[in-house]
Amino acid sequence: MADDTLSRLEAVIAARRDADPDSSYVAKLNAKGLKKIAQKLGEEATETVIAALVEDRQALVGEAADLLFHLVVLLNAKQVPLAEVFAELERREGTSGIAEKASRTS
Amino acid sequence: MADDTLSRLEAVIAARRDADPDSSYVAKLNAKGLKKIAQKLGEEATETVIAALVEDRQALVGEAADLLFHLVVLLNAKQVPLAEVFAELERREGTSGIAEKASRTS
Amino acid sequence: MADDTLSRLEAVIAARRDADPDSSYVAKLNAKGLKKIAQKLGEEATETVIAALVEDRQALVGEAADLLFHLVVLLNAKQVPLAEVFAELERREGTSGIAEKASRTS
Amino acid sequence: MADDTLSRLEAVIAARRDADPDSSYVAKLNAKGLKKIAQKLGEEATETVIAALVEDRQALVGEAADLLFHLVVLLNAKQVPLAEVFAELERREGTSGIAEKASRTS
Repeated sequence: MADDTLSRLEAVIAARRDADPDSSYVAKLNAKGLKKIAQKLGEEATETVIAALVEDRQALVGEAADLLFHLVVLLNAKQVPLAEVFAELERREGTSGIAEKASRTS
Repeated sequence: MADDTLSRLEAVIAARRDADPDSSYVAKLNAKGLKKIAQKLGEEATETVIAALVEDRQALVGEAADLLFHLVVLLNAKQVPLAEVFAELERREGTSGIAEKASRTS
Repeated sequence: MADDTLSRLEAVIAARRDADPDSSYVAKLNAKGLKKIAQKLGEEATETVIAALVEDRQALVGEAADLLFHLVVLLNAKQVPLAEVFAELERREGTSGIAEKASRTS
Repeated sequence: MADDTLSRLEAVIAARRDADPDSSYVAKLNAKGLKKIAQKLGEEATETVIAALVEDRQALVGEAADLLFHLVVLLNAKQVPLAEVFAELERREGTSGIAEKASRTS
């Protein structure tokens, strides 16, 4: 584990994006297009929900990893750096939880 | 932005978890229980999908931040450290994307 | 209960669509736009998943009703008659389940 | 198209449920268990959202049919007759849209 796992994952995903779709899952997803990537994000979220409610701890770890992986693929496909998402989280932090939520468009 | 944003967010969420539900969104969500937290994760994933497909860049940044926030709340509620999820991502990395995906239970 | 429940629901929803958003939930949703309606569908699906896995029978009945309701609102907003969706289901029926699934774009 | 499409679909699904998983998609899904069925419902909902927002009319018809199909499979797996869900929709109907929504646990 390391705090920079996601940043390194982002770099790996960016590097694989234009690779041969036959040899890279990331390239294959990107070749299928944004709708497919978004669909995968939705699927992994449902699987995370299910794991949290009725599966064991290891299943939840695996599904949360899948969800993060596909979120980074989606952001990369839209050319949104993770750093911008982290900056948004930082911006909200420090306010109380309730105020923070209220400040979002929700 | 910083690589340790999520780790710090995790600490903030852990600290707020048992706060007064009237003053903390995290405490409020936890008071409602795991089903509500899981439901919020699903909602934010749908909103991220929608933002990626038909909204602007800033909307996607905001929804991705919401999704990450609620994923950390969910993991915290299940007492799964983010470090375990990062370790799982590290474990998978280095293999090719296709092999990596095949190695998941999916 | 009656087989024509959804068809009558469709007519009710069509009639309410342009009503005063302050007095009709359907009008309010339509005033917010298609993204909001799609988002609600996603939310109700997550709630149906959760109800099926960890809630009681009555909760599942309620969430399935919510999901159907919002699906009809969504189809109405896109001007797709339920009859077309039923016709598609009829078209697929009669083939074996496996063949049927294979025949979808999925 | 016919108002009784879903009721007939329900009967077909009930009949296939205990068929050979190699020859029936419904039997295969049931053999995999409730989590898999719930996961499929979530997937089809995401695909319906995507179709409504960025695909053409025929794609939406197909995804809505998939969503209804898997909802009936899920209800059948939980032994909840569609008639109960229709009855719940009937029960709510007649009230104004806003009141109706407010009356749900949401």
